[in-house]
Amino acid sequence: MVDVVVVGTVALDDVKTPFGEVKNALGGSATFASLACSLFSKVGLVAVIGNDFPEKHIDFLASKKIDLKGLERDKARKSFHWSGEYGLDLNVAKTLRTDLNALETFSPKLPEEYRKADFLFLGNLDPEIQLNVLAQMKKRPSMVVADTMNLWIELKREKVLQVVKEVDIALMNDAEARQLFRTPSLVRAAREILSLDSKVAIIKKGEHGCVMFTDKKHFACPGYPLEKVIDPTGSGDSFGGALIGYLARTRDFTEKNMRKGIVYASSVASFNAEAFSTEKLSKISEADVRKRYREFKGFVRF
Amino acid sequence: MVDVVVVGTVALDDVKTPFGEVKNALGGSATFASLACSLFSKVGLVAVIGNDFPEKHIDFLASKKIDLKGLERDKARKSFHWSGEYGLDLNVAKTLRTDLNALETFSPKLPEEYRKADFLFLGNLDPEIQLNVLAQMKKRPSMVVADTMNLWIELKREKVLQVVKEVDIALMNDAEARQLFRTPSLVRAAREILSLDSKVAIIKKGEHGCVMFTDKKHFACPGYPLEKVIDPTGSGDSFGGALIGYLARTRDFTEKNMRKGIVYASSVASFNAEAFSTEKLSKISEADVRKRYREFKGFVRF
Repeated sequence: MVDVVVVGTVALDDVKTPFGEVKNALGGSATFASLACSLFSKVGLVAVIGNDFPEKHIDFLASKKIDLKGLERDKARKSFHWSGEYGLDLNVAKTLRTDLNALETFSPKLPEEYRKADFLFLGNLDPEIQLNVLAQMKKRPSMVVADTMNLWIELKREKVLQVVKEVDIALMNDAEARQLFRTPSLVRAAREILSLDSKVAIIKKGEHGCVMFTDKKHFACPGYPLEKVIDPTGSGDSFGGALIGYLARTRDFTEKNMRKGIVYASSVASFNAEAFSTEKLSKISEADVRKRYREFKGFVRF
Repeated sequence: MVDVVVVGTVALDDVKTPFGEVKNALGGSATFASLACSLFSKVGLVAVIGNDFPEKHIDFLASKKIDLKGLERDKARKSFHWSGEYGLDLNVAKTLRTDLNALETFSPKLPEEYRKADFLFLGNLDPEIQLNVLAQMKKRPSMVVADTMNLWIELKREKVLQVVKEVDIALMNDAEARQLFRTPSLVRAAREILSLDSKVAIIKKGEHGCVMFTDKKHFACPGYPLEKVIDPTGSGDSFGGALIGYLARTRDFTEKNMRKGIVYASSVASFNAEAFSTEKLSKISEADVRKRYREFKGFVRF
C-alpha cells in the first residue's frame, strides 16, 4: 500500500550549466518528487514513458522502493524530452526545447490501490491531467499538494487557477506566482492563492529559499548556502516530494509541523542541486537530510 | 560628539516605479544611511550638495539630529542627480541617468571632531573617496562598514577590492558580489570577501533578505513580507546605516549581536521601501522597528 501518490512527468533531459552538460539524463517532475518523497514515505509514481526509455532508469527507480504500478509505457511515442540551459545565474532555467511526445496523449488511469491513498502530489504537469487525477480518487485525500510551471500558466491559466482552488498546498516559484496573479508582490500573490481556497501557499525562490503563507502566519526558510550549484533542475520537484513525504510520515498538518517539513524539504532540494540529474538524490540518506536540517537551525537563530 | 560618521552621497533623485514617480526627491546613500543610523546613534554626515539643493532638505536632516558639519556645498555645481526606474520586479533598479555634478570634484575634508569617531560607514560612493576618508581618521575606528555598487565595480574594480580589504564589514548586494568576484556562487563570493581580510561579509538580496558570512558561521535573515513595495531606493543604504547605528549603540561585535543588528537593519530597510524617497524613514520610531524585529522572530522559528 502506498502512502503518497505522485503524478507528474518522467523525462529524458538535456541540461547544460556552466559546470557541464548531460544528455538524455533521467529527469521529470515525478522522478525528482518521488525520489525525494521516498526518503520519508512509501510512494507510488504515476507517469508515462515512451518507447526509447532505458530499462536502467526503471530499475533504478524500483531499487529506491518506488512503486511503479502507475508508470505506463507508450509504445508508439518517444519519452517526454526537455532541453534546458542555465547561465551564471543558476536560479533561472532557459527552456531550449520541450518535446511532449508521450505526454501529448497521456491520460493516466490510477491503479485501484492508488485511488485510496491519503496523500497526493500533483507534480508539474498539464493542469487538466492534474484535475483528472484528483477526480479519480475514491475519497478526497487528507492532503493534496500541487506544483506548476510557467508553461501551463501561459497555456492554461484558468485550469491552473482551478488546481490551486482544489488543493491544500499550492506550490510555485516566485516568477510563476507573479505571473499567475499579475502582481509584482509575492505577498499579494500568496494572499490570492489563499483566497482561492488553498489553505497554504508556498512560494519557492531557488537559492533564496522559500516562504510559506497561511491565513495568519508567515514562515521564511532560507536556501542552504551551497558553495557550488551544479544543476538545479528538479530541486523544486524534490522540495515538493520531500514535503509531502514528510507530512505523510508525520500526519501532522499543524503550521508548526509544516515549518519543519519545509526545512526538511529545503535540505533535500539543496542536495539535488549539487549534481546533474538524480545523481545526488540517489545517494543521500535521511541522516544526511537531518544533518542539514540541524544546520538550518543555526542559520536563522538570532 | 558623533558616534558614527557616514560618508556617501546626498542626491536629488528622479524615481519611477509601477506605483508612481517623484522628481528631485531627497535621496543618496548618505541620506538614507544617516537617517536610518539616527534611529540608534548620534550620526554625522559627510557629503557634498550643489547650488540647487533645497534648504528644506537640509532643515529636514537637521531636524533628525543629524550632525551636518561635514555637509559641504559646492556653489559652482549642481547636486548629484540620479534617475532610475523599477519595473514589475522591484528588486532591480534600472539607472536611466547619473549626473555626478558636485560629486565629480568632491574631496571631503573631515571635520576634526569626526576624525576621532569610533564608527565609520563608507556608503556607496567612489571607492577612492571612501579610501581617502578612511585615511583621514586619526585612529583606526573600532568598526568600519563599507557598501558599494555596480557602477564602481565596473569603473574601479581594484579600488573596490581595496576598500573590501580595509574594512571590517563589507556590504554589497547579490548581483554586485557575483560581478566583483566573477562567480555565480554567493557563497564563493562571500569566501573571497573574507579572504581579502574583511571579518564579515553581508550580502543584501532585496526582498529576499540578506545573508551574513563570517569565518565559521552563516546567518540568513529573510526579507520582511511587504504587501506593497512602493520604492526600494535607499533600502540597502538604510540597512547599512541602521546596522552601524545599532553596533555603535551596543558596542558588541560578537557574531550573535551582529545577527540582531542585521534583523534591526532589515526592519528599518523594509519600512524605507514602503514609500518614495525618505517619506517613510522620516516617520518611523525605534518602537516601530522593534515591533518588526519581534515579527522576524516568528517568521523564522521552526
